Amino acid sequence: MPYMPITESMFLIAETREQPMHVGGLQLFVPRAGQSASELAEEFVVRFNTCTDLDPLFRKRPATPATVMGYVAWSHDDDIDFDYHVRRSVLPRPGRVRELLRYVSLQHSALLDRNRPMWEVHIIEGLEDGRVALYTKIHHSLIDGVSALRMLQRTLTADPEDRNGSAPWDPALYRRAPKPSSSSSSSSSRIPDLSGALDLAGSALDVGGQIVGMLPATARIAWTALTNKDFAAPFRPAPRTMLDVPIGSARRFAAQQWSTDRLRDVAQQMGITLNDVVIAMCSGALRSYLIDHDELPDTPLIAAVPVSLHIAGAEGKDGNSITAILANMATDEPDPERRLQTLVNSMRESKRVIRGLSPLQALAYGAATIASLAFATVPGFVRYTPPQLNIIISNVPGPSEHMYWNGARLDGVYPVSVVMEGLALNITVTTTAEHVNFGLIGARKELPSLQRLLTHLDTALEELEKVANVTSSGTD
Amino acid sequence: MPYMPITESMFLIAETREQPMHVGGLQLFVPRAGQSASELAEEFVVRFNTCTDLDPLFRKRPATPATVMGYVAWSHDDDIDFDYHVRRSVLPRPGRVRELLRYVSLQHSALLDRNRPMWEVHIIEGLEDGRVALYTKIHHSLIDGVSALRMLQRTLTADPEDRNGSAPWDPALYRRAPKPSSSSSSSSSRIPDLSGALDLAGSALDVGGQIVGMLPATARIAWTALTNKDFAAPFRPAPRTMLDVPIGSARRFAAQQWSTDRLRDVAQQMGITLNDVVIAMCSGALRSYLIDHDELPDTPLIAAVPVSLHIAGAEGKDGNSITAILANMATDEPDPERRLQTLVNSMRESKRVIRGLSPLQALAYGAATIASLAFATVPGFVRYTPPQLNIIISNVPGPSEHMYWNGARLDGVYPVSVVMEGLALNITVTTTAEHVNFGLIGARKELPSLQRLLTHLDTALEELEKVANVTSSGTD
Repeated sequence: MPYMPITESMFLIAETREQPMHVGGLQLFVPRAGQSASELAEEFVVRFNTCTDLDPLFRKRPATPATVMGYVAWSHDDDIDFDYHVRRSVLPRPGRVRELLRYVSLQHSALLDRNRPMWEVHIIEGLEDGRVALYTKIHHSLIDGVSALRMLQRTLTADPEDRNGSAPWDPALYRRAPKPSSSSSSSSSRIPDLSGALDLAGSALDVGGQIVGMLPATARIAWTALTNKDFAAPFRPAPRTMLDVPIGSARRFAAQQWSTDRLRDVAQQMGITLNDVVIAMCSGALRSYLIDHDELPDTPLIAAVPVSLHIAGAEGKDGNSITAILANMATDEPDPERRLQTLVNSMRESKRVIRGLSPLQALAYGAATIASLAFATVPGFVRYTPPQLNIIISNVPGPSEHMYWNGARLDGVYPVSVVMEGLALNITVTTTAEHVNFGLIGARKELPSLQRLLTHLDTALEELEKVANVTSSGTD
Repeated sequence: MPYMPITESMFLIAETREQPMHVGGLQLFVPRAGQSASELAEEFVVRFNTCTDLDPLFRKRPATPATVMGYVAWSHDDDIDFDYHVRRSVLPRPGRVRELLRYVSLQHSALLDRNRPMWEVHIIEGLEDGRVALYTKIHHSLIDGVSALRMLQRTLTADPEDRNGSAPWDPALYRRAPKPSSSSSSSSSRIPDLSGALDLAGSALDVGGQIVGMLPATARIAWTALTNKDFAAPFRPAPRTMLDVPIGSARRFAAQQWSTDRLRDVAQQMGITLNDVVIAMCSGALRSYLIDHDELPDTPLIAAVPVSLHIAGAEGKDGNSITAILANMATDEPDPERRLQTLVNSMRESKRVIRGLSPLQALAYGAATIASLAFATVPGFVRYTPPQLNIIISNVPGPSEHMYWNGARLDGVYPVSVVMEGLALNITVTTTAEHVNFGLIGARKELPSLQRLLTHLDTALEELEKVANVTSSGTD
């Protein structure tokens, strides 16, 4: 039985019924010409159920599911109960996106069974707009959120005529995959040019994993490197808000996409990055949401933003580090222009500091930034300690061209992430050919009317367009 | 905050992700003339969502959901998130009963959220036969399985013209209910004549609750009464089978109904009770199922069967005790006639013994019978101790006439019970006007092809009909 490192078992240990530790992805597909939604759904069902050779990742389960024995090893199942793992569902009428989000909300609240490989795929019909949705759920001990999204992309191709659509667990996909190279441009290869980008960016939980994964000796070296330079970590106390509370198990998922052109226009006009625009949209939306609930704190919210580092002299994948920076969200600032400026300055300053650090220091910086997350599962920790940060906002680059599964076009892909005690909301953003897709997952009871954040994000983008003096490039 | 007695908190304490402690009921309705399935579903949705005044039972939740604080008190929510508790679902094509059972299997595997009142109602469309299903799920700390079924019946009426169909939580239903009386005959009253029968019969978990609920002193008195009479409890070691194993969280639900006339014909011809026929069907089916898996033990399976006691001299509800007897299932006997005889003799003997006991002794007998259940959640207990019993089979009397919700006829009602480590299968049977409804819930991974038990139950009934020399009264 393969040994289970602490970076994997920590997600089993930290998991409670209030805090499920699985990540998910919601993909939306438009059937190919002449194909009905139910034909496409049927195609998914048939292809998935007949792909009975599984990559080992999809056969892995904890050798000892009960906590009493500890989580020391993985075992692999040979016999997979497809009827359990692959689920076909139909949305109730009227089949709006709202019914889809509700379905994902409820499913994402439920724990995975630890006595079998910890994943599920839901093939969802009944959308009034004729699209078919796939909701995929996989335990965080098996894969991090970014890698999960990447794995889902592996079944796709840029070739609309390709009819080799397979299941995410098909081992052939992994054998066929070209070696990731950060300089390869996307072409007709099955694997889009995600690899480079995704190796660089990372979800905050990746960093979380790295912290806990550091052996004491490693951690001490990293910390020493950091403190020897007399570098003051930019820890300012984050305000206590409705985001920083113990949570129940129920979730609410909200998702919407905006045209990439709209965000890019703002970025170009203002001389900032697309990611700055994403964070600024979140800032404006969170401010409005907190005002709705009469909960806006006097001091600004602090967001952890995972960033990629291109470190001079270190070429290739291994020379890059995933880290996280803290951003001043400037939510206390009513004026959109000043809010944007404060936020962008804060992001730039943090990145400048990071770039001056060695890779080891940078890693330790990221670790220190979100160190408190490791304690989120200690009972009472959240209630009695001031928060270090209020929210994690991740931006994951997606495919830059249209992608297809068996001729059906991927129309949107939304990450469905993890929320934790003390971090009741997670925003993860991913980009596809033409859209920036926001996936918001939150604790259902603690964050009422979470879906209103979508309207507020839209308003925030309009405000930014006014600030940048660009006009909206039309409907989304 | 009201204090939570151990008989309620035990179900919170014993609950693990592998062993959810909620009970459920599946009800099937035929729309009234001229009404489509989706119109009936919509009617349920509207009536349920507008019934915003809730009986306190449906507003109760543990005041401290996290185990670290213990479960000492209940609190009541005033604001109910109906969008969460009342769920509308559509089955995928072809919408056979198989798809419905699969839906219930998957839903029954998921834990309820402890941060809100612990119940869900699922309104399920998409059955090809045009029926609409209701799956109701409620935590065992709030209600036992039998009372849950009874609660579901409260929304029904014998009057097909009645259009006051309401939600199970409507406080008016409880105010309107006549005082249960064991001698009242069913008539046009809203509440069918279940009360008497249901007060007498009980699920085994009721007894379990009573065991744990007995204070040490009470238990000692009961035990003394029992041992003073030098009464030897009929504990024979039950064989270890595939039913007596630690379980995972995934469930499989199977359900089917048979015509009451068929079972009654066998009972009358053989001079036995209808319940004897039910147990004999289970015996034959379990024998075949275990043979399928090459797991038939040499010694007979032992079933715990909750029974009602009419104790001489004790009139009315309080004079009756719920207890459980152990039955020799005679699964080692290949001949159906001899199997039936052994089983019926065992049941009669157990009941005869019970009738000779005082109420207190009878209660203690029942408690001792299933005492090992209380230890089922102790890690390792099931692995290292021989089982006392292999399965619990409950028979719950239902309404004796046709019942309606807003004019839609109740066509079947199946209990969905709890399975536990060491009791991987539970069979609960309920009767309606014309049918005996079997609900089988089992650990999905540990009991492969559980649904084959339905075919085996059918075969077992045919065998019994041959033994009794009666012909089947047609299709079911």
